[in-house]
Amino acid sequence: MSKIVNLNADMGEGFGAYDIGDDDGVLKIIKSASIACGFHAGDPVTMRRVVQRAKEEGVSIGAHPGFNDLWGFGRRRIDMRPDDLECMVAYQIGALQAMASYVGEKVTHLKAHGALGNIAAEDLDIAMAIGRAIKAVDPNIIYVALSGSEMEKAGRKLNLKVAREGYCDRQYEDDGNLTSRKVPGSVLHDPAAVTKQVVRMVLDGEIISRNGKVVKHQVDTLCVHADEPTAMTTAQAARKGLEDAGVKIVSLTEMNFA
Amino acid sequence: MSKIVNLNADMGEGFGAYDIGDDDGVLKIIKSASIACGFHAGDPVTMRRVVQRAKEEGVSIGAHPGFNDLWGFGRRRIDMRPDDLECMVAYQIGALQAMASYVGEKVTHLKAHGALGNIAAEDLDIAMAIGRAIKAVDPNIIYVALSGSEMEKAGRKLNLKVAREGYCDRQYEDDGNLTSRKVPGSVLHDPAAVTKQVVRMVLDGEIISRNGKVVKHQVDTLCVHADEPTAMTTAQAARKGLEDAGVKIVSLTEMNFA
Amino acid sequence: MSKIVNLNADMGEGFGAYDIGDDDGVLKIIKSASIACGFHAGDPVTMRRVVQRAKEEGVSIGAHPGFNDLWGFGRRRIDMRPDDLECMVAYQIGALQAMASYVGEKVTHLKAHGALGNIAAEDLDIAMAIGRAIKAVDPNIIYVALSGSEMEKAGRKLNLKVAREGYCDRQYEDDGNLTSRKVPGSVLHDPAAVTKQVVRMVLDGEIISRNGKVVKHQVDTLCVHADEPTAMTTAQAARKGLEDAGVKIVSLTEMNFA
Amino acid sequence: MSKIVNLNADMGEGFGAYDIGDDDGVLKIIKSASIACGFHAGDPVTMRRVVQRAKEEGVSIGAHPGFNDLWGFGRRRIDMRPDDLECMVAYQIGALQAMASYVGEKVTHLKAHGALGNIAAEDLDIAMAIGRAIKAVDPNIIYVALSGSEMEKAGRKLNLKVAREGYCDRQYEDDGNLTSRKVPGSVLHDPAAVTKQVVRMVLDGEIISRNGKVVKHQVDTLCVHADEPTAMTTAQAARKGLEDAGVKIVSLTEMNFA
Repeated sequence: MSKIVNLNADMGEGFGAYDIGDDDGVLKIIKSASIACGFHAGDPVTMRRVVQRAKEEGVSIGAHPGFNDLWGFGRRRIDMRPDDLECMVAYQIGALQAMASYVGEKVTHLKAHGALGNIAAEDLDIAMAIGRAIKAVDPNIIYVALSGSEMEKAGRKLNLKVAREGYCDRQYEDDGNLTSRKVPGSVLHDPAAVTKQVVRMVLDGEIISRNGKVVKHQVDTLCVHADEPTAMTTAQAARKGLEDAGVKIVSLTEMNFA
Repeated sequence: MSKIVNLNADMGEGFGAYDIGDDDGVLKIIKSASIACGFHAGDPVTMRRVVQRAKEEGVSIGAHPGFNDLWGFGRRRIDMRPDDLECMVAYQIGALQAMASYVGEKVTHLKAHGALGNIAAEDLDIAMAIGRAIKAVDPNIIYVALSGSEMEKAGRKLNLKVAREGYCDRQYEDDGNLTSRKVPGSVLHDPAAVTKQVVRMVLDGEIISRNGKVVKHQVDTLCVHADEPTAMTTAQAARKGLEDAGVKIVSLTEMNFA
Repeated sequence: MSKIVNLNADMGEGFGAYDIGDDDGVLKIIKSASIACGFHAGDPVTMRRVVQRAKEEGVSIGAHPGFNDLWGFGRRRIDMRPDDLECMVAYQIGALQAMASYVGEKVTHLKAHGALGNIAAEDLDIAMAIGRAIKAVDPNIIYVALSGSEMEKAGRKLNLKVAREGYCDRQYEDDGNLTSRKVPGSVLHDPAAVTKQVVRMVLDGEIISRNGKVVKHQVDTLCVHADEPTAMTTAQAARKGLEDAGVKIVSLTEMNFA
Repeated sequence: MSKIVNLNADMGEGFGAYDIGDDDGVLKIIKSASIACGFHAGDPVTMRRVVQRAKEEGVSIGAHPGFNDLWGFGRRRIDMRPDDLECMVAYQIGALQAMASYVGEKVTHLKAHGALGNIAAEDLDIAMAIGRAIKAVDPNIIYVALSGSEMEKAGRKLNLKVAREGYCDRQYEDDGNLTSRKVPGSVLHDPAAVTKQVVRMVLDGEIISRNGKVVKHQVDTLCVHADEPTAMTTAQAARKGLEDAGVKIVSLTEMNFA
């Protein structure tokens, strides 16, 4: 039986007159889109347009909730009570569900954006709050969680479907965490290196850390970026490398998380 | 067979640390709540709390979308393209649906707020845009429309359930429109006058205009306010007067709009 | 004595992670910058950066206030009371003054953005409100006003310095108003046509309307756009054409509005 | 020579239709007002009204900048880079200066709001960023700083005028810091206790800590709240107690910070 993996990307992160990222380009590469919901980015009109485009490309629709901080693009930590944060996430899921209903689709996964995702990876209370929002609004929504993080733990505790996520173009530490962007070389720009990393992740469930150690790292989905030209090249290389290795790229909705 | 009517009110119009209106008081009088959705007022935490309180009081939950203008409390007209406005309304419905799912309820009606409602009453394009948002997100949602307005027309055209709305404490013109608030006496403060007006509206389907003319005016729901003490007294008088006249006060979900 | 004219452009209209327009390119062409103040676009960090760049290029600094509508980029009319609108404009001037103080400069002109400018050109009450904001905050600020508009009238009434503005790349009607963008050909893309129009405006104080009529049209400043590649070419053509005709391009602060 | 002290309070913290706090009541007690600037609370119209009222009551005008978080009322920490935060503070000062110019007044002090003030008290980088904003916009603005905090240190380093602040109705720890609000009894509600504390602070430059220790604590200004009825009573008691002890209550502009 052939191996499968999902490719996902953040999308719809413009706002009004502002545009950012190459949504149309990335939709040709990925199988699941995480769409901004109007708090850190996105607006009702943009969301409507992006769900339409995702539908046309056969890409499944997910929520990409973030902090209520358009100025900071959701990249700044805001110190919220978990219960308030839960409401904030639930609100954003519902808003996207309404837009998805325009194309007869459902919101099938959730991936936290920026600082929200970073905190949730480390802080179980926040990861649980996000999970509870999913559970309350639609327990079938797949919780995309950095593999091995507190988010994965929260998703398991809440009996949610969890898609473990890896990164195509990022180096890892010996403990399986991402190497900080501040460390030189932490972002992979060489398509060959990217291809090697993702194929090993998917076929063997392991990565080679920055220090050369083999680390277990199970992934169901790989994150792809679209904000810079090299990221796009990297994404294409990852997809081609996986397909050449016999891996099938599927949407999150085609995977079995039972 | 006894006559029935609904009483509705706007609710959840605080924002963060700010509170406005006596939500708990008005929930004892009404049967359907129109809850602000985070654009002109309301926030995810407030919405979560208000759906809970509505559920506890057996009051049905409706969306109260408004313009994206917290500073102006949704009372200022914003010149939007109907398609954009439609997305804006759909987004707000979805956001409230998510919060309603916390208490196992659905959003069962929609009433436009402030300037959005005022424009929609007069402008068919805007009224249709709101109606299309309902149709796309959940065609079972009841469209609360000023009786005789373009909103009522739009709802009929789109085959939506339409609840025709009247006002307990407002005078009317000969053509069935509300007398402007700028006209002295346009707001009724005398409980006896209010009672007389609402009972006649419900039992006879007519009102006596400011000039003494009898005007046909069919209503399914009566709007009650909670923002000032006299409004509260008026609301209580309306309810008691109707019940004394044998009218049953029901939620919008108990009515038959087929 | 040689003729002079100012070239101005809107700038700093990004927001947080979002960028729009080629600020650096346009700064090489113009002599006065109208900088967004955080309501329709712009944020404190962007404002700080743009005043710095303007200073470095010897370009004078003006406020470019707009409606409080980032989603609509200030292009949607919002129905505000003139007194409230006045406060909104004063606030934005002050905010930019603070940023200008970082580079030892003053805010020396004001140009209303988008829908705010469009309304003010036609509505004396709004034009006066903007003028009163200038007068209250700093009566030396030059009021940039569409030549012949209600803004020009308001500026005169309030004894403000008024810079009459013309457009390089727009056709005009027989009455001196701009031809609507909806009319084909209303935006000039041919550098030769642009050059001819601006030179005639500056040297002869007149334009040739869309219908071929000669219309008086005095201008002190010409508006240049930077949002599309052809606009940039047009702007460069306008500047070169004027200089070839012996016109000196100066900042608004070098002109005499006494 | 008689002792003097300033009383200050936060004001103008409504937003649009929302009102909070008894601005008119507190203006009768204090001598310097810290006015919200539109980020955590306040809007241009509210600011305009409050500067007017302050002027009428002979109360000096200060800026009360906060995080850009209306939903959280500026009480939630947002993780900003100090340089960005500096721009954010400078922007707010400028905005209030514009409104103050309507009544012929200047912004003469600055007090950071909520989470911004809490962080700045502990984090020198943030305290310096606020101080640099003052220095850039108007170096005569008095920096109101929790006595003994990093803010006081930052103000001294930048050669700014620093007003050391104490709290009328809060208990202190042995190290001079405020006792956390979570500790029972940390907020004083007994007017006699309040009076005793403030008189000792002003006359003797010391406080009695929660544990009974005498701690040096120099203050130039005392903070008064207006958000609850008991706070108002406390504020009045503080004022009366000080005056009975021969202390003169002055505005910050009447003090000598050379």
